[in-house]
Amino acid sequence: MEGKNTPRVVIVGAGFGGLTAARKLARYPVQIVLIDRHNYHTFQPLLYQVATAGLSPGEIAAPIRWILRGRNNVRILMGEVDDIDLSRRVVKLVDAEIPYDYLIVAAGASHAYFGHDEWEPFAPGLKTIEDALEIRRRVLLALELAERQAADAAEQVQLNFVVVGGGPTGVELAGTLAEITRTALVNEFHSIDPERTRILLLEGGPRVLPAYPEDLSRSAEEQLRRLGVEVHTSTMVTGIQPAAVITSAARLPAAVILWAAGVAASPLGKRLGTPLDRAGRVVVNPDLSLPGHPEVFVIGDLASLKDKTGKLLPGLAPVAIQQGNATAKNIARELQGEPRRDFHYFDKGSLATIGRAAAVAQFGKIHIAGFFAWLSWLFVHIFFLIGFRNRLIVLIQWAWSYFTYERGARLITGSTQLPSWNDLQLEETEKPERRRTSA
Amino acid sequence: MEGKNTPRVVIVGAGFGGLTAARKLARYPVQIVLIDRHNYHTFQPLLYQVATAGLSPGEIAAPIRWILRGRNNVRILMGEVDDIDLSRRVVKLVDAEIPYDYLIVAAGASHAYFGHDEWEPFAPGLKTIEDALEIRRRVLLALELAERQAADAAEQVQLNFVVVGGGPTGVELAGTLAEITRTALVNEFHSIDPERTRILLLEGGPRVLPAYPEDLSRSAEEQLRRLGVEVHTSTMVTGIQPAAVITSAARLPAAVILWAAGVAASPLGKRLGTPLDRAGRVVVNPDLSLPGHPEVFVIGDLASLKDKTGKLLPGLAPVAIQQGNATAKNIARELQGEPRRDFHYFDKGSLATIGRAAAVAQFGKIHIAGFFAWLSWLFVHIFFLIGFRNRLIVLIQWAWSYFTYERGARLITGSTQLPSWNDLQLEETEKPERRRTSA
Repeated sequence: MEGKNTPRVVIVGAGFGGLTAARKLARYPVQIVLIDRHNYHTFQPLLYQVATAGLSPGEIAAPIRWILRGRNNVRILMGEVDDIDLSRRVVKLVDAEIPYDYLIVAAGASHAYFGHDEWEPFAPGLKTIEDALEIRRRVLLALELAERQAADAAEQVQLNFVVVGGGPTGVELAGTLAEITRTALVNEFHSIDPERTRILLLEGGPRVLPAYPEDLSRSAEEQLRRLGVEVHTSTMVTGIQPAAVITSAARLPAAVILWAAGVAASPLGKRLGTPLDRAGRVVVNPDLSLPGHPEVFVIGDLASLKDKTGKLLPGLAPVAIQQGNATAKNIARELQGEPRRDFHYFDKGSLATIGRAAAVAQFGKIHIAGFFAWLSWLFVHIFFLIGFRNRLIVLIQWAWSYFTYERGARLITGSTQLPSWNDLQLEETEKPERRRTSA
Repeated sequence: MEGKNTPRVVIVGAGFGGLTAARKLARYPVQIVLIDRHNYHTFQPLLYQVATAGLSPGEIAAPIRWILRGRNNVRILMGEVDDIDLSRRVVKLVDAEIPYDYLIVAAGASHAYFGHDEWEPFAPGLKTIEDALEIRRRVLLALELAERQAADAAEQVQLNFVVVGGGPTGVELAGTLAEITRTALVNEFHSIDPERTRILLLEGGPRVLPAYPEDLSRSAEEQLRRLGVEVHTSTMVTGIQPAAVITSAARLPAAVILWAAGVAASPLGKRLGTPLDRAGRVVVNPDLSLPGHPEVFVIGDLASLKDKTGKLLPGLAPVAIQQGNATAKNIARELQGEPRRDFHYFDKGSLATIGRAAAVAQFGKIHIAGFFAWLSWLFVHIFFLIGFRNRLIVLIQWAWSYFTYERGARLITGSTQLPSWNDLQLEETEKPERRRTSA
């Protein structure tokens, strides 16, 4: 469709950054190749809803081909990028090489265990649809197993769900787990009482949501307690075992352990050969290009860039989207003989959800907590969700859940193999100092 | 909650039969234990929609606990029944024994390969949510692979999808595959032309939908051809290889092979020790009880019973539902000192869907085909779908797809490992006599 001399832009990764760059660039006379290991774009901010059985995967993910349909200068390839050869200007897949004139690396980040990869099988993280389905499977299966054990033994069992990490993901997982065990599931089990499930949120630092102002952290902790979450701040996790979390203070038996304590940039960053920051992110020039390689850009969670005040930009969707747009425009400018511009992040505010009608929001100097923060969160997220049908269906699901307290997507899929009782330690042996929960 | 002497009814399987029996029995003073290997009930008539990316699993499945919420005399256990000890009156799970006073075995059927179980990895069948996701994965992955191969080789590749078996499942799979490759996907691929995908439906007998009257079979075949399906009747499959189907006439290369040619009753039927029919179904008394064991009932796809005219009852949802109801009532009657009644199937008609606005329907002597048959099919299926929210969302999805030709649930999940080119034989080597498709 394009001539031989049309410049080719290869984009690695169809997350918020890569997808935005592809959409924007498609208007210019370039040929675009977008490579992703999945055939769909995931709306990551709502992954926790899939993990907690509120939404189905199809409702927060959209086929990349569908999103970019009708854009004839975009070629989409499903594949895994193994390496990048900067000198020959080719992207290497397992079985193919894709040459580029411009390259945008938007390969994102995954969860990280800080050198303890052996913890992963016992404490899954939440970065992909598959992760979310695995968490859903474990949570629902733990309840089913407890029901069977309690029915056999005719006694109550204590179920602990432990969430490690008090950032936005940890807070929304803990809050939603508390919400569903105290509402959606209450009347559906006979031998166990889902309300007696303990949800523990462990945070190494002194407060939850450390990236937020202190007053919102305090409010988030208070909202979590009201939902029934036991919040333990300044609590370092020193070990994770098949069904227990070891902290400096105690050994916590846990039917389910969820990891929300850290992310690491894609290993593709290392292949570029330029300096990385402590989190493995690629340190980029002010125009998001790779030092020494003006034809290569790194954007989104994989890029390390400081704002005007010297603070590193956070790994958030708005940052990636703005960087995708800025990079597309810089490439277009350069092709038209104009100079590039440096990237400046425009912070429109931050929102973190906690549970039903519970959230915190910061818009500049304005701090909001509770129902109205949650309402803003809800509308912002529905607005940015891709696809009109998805928006409509997610809105119906949420309206339904809000008024009925029901969760629709409670299917245990994947391995239907039931672990034996001994695989899951449901009985509690020790307790950390238990804080009183208000309400 | 119930006294020691409340009779206990154990139900194995939460399909249409088992679930109906549990709902009905819950009104009577009995304690009920419902055992299923999944935590959800699957609305099997719409499984093909999940396999063809039209609906998400959560939209056609509902948690059993949610369906039976508030019924305090029903206990639900997620588990796999290994055996039944008729003399001791216990149902055996891997790690538990459940005693019963009455037992209802509603374990259903699975797909069968007629002694060729080695075909299963190459030609998955469609009986569970997991099956549907595996078929969806294969279909979408085949298109992605063809796109990559065609882009590399800069030439068209021929993709064949072969559906083995011309019963209702084979017809709806073939029709829907033709529909999506000719509409939803047309503008989304650049190097391949999804319209050039060949969909072949192979049927061993002389006509598709053999259980329907001849005029409706003819109409179904005509509607399939109009959608672009190549129908080959009187074509016996003699072998299935990794990417090819062998028939008496030819070797058909196939990127995806789907098996819709046969079902076999659950192996649990054999454990009952009474005579089985040719399909492995348990031959039951006229009241659906097991010969020699009035306290045991077998219902649904696992039961073999003849109607008044001497014809075996088909394995359909309405049969299972009516049998579940009849058995619940017979148990209630017996507990009240009344005699049991024999089961009589009331045939309200049959519907088979083929694709967009294409279906056949039989209501007694009335035969309908085309748009109005499809409309009846649609409303009957939405009406019987469990859960008001599911009905609403499925209706929206369908209305959306109908007017936009889009498919929403096109996610390749599960193994994201891409097979290499050599694993899939995309090039065609021989062709069977190719029939002309009208339109």
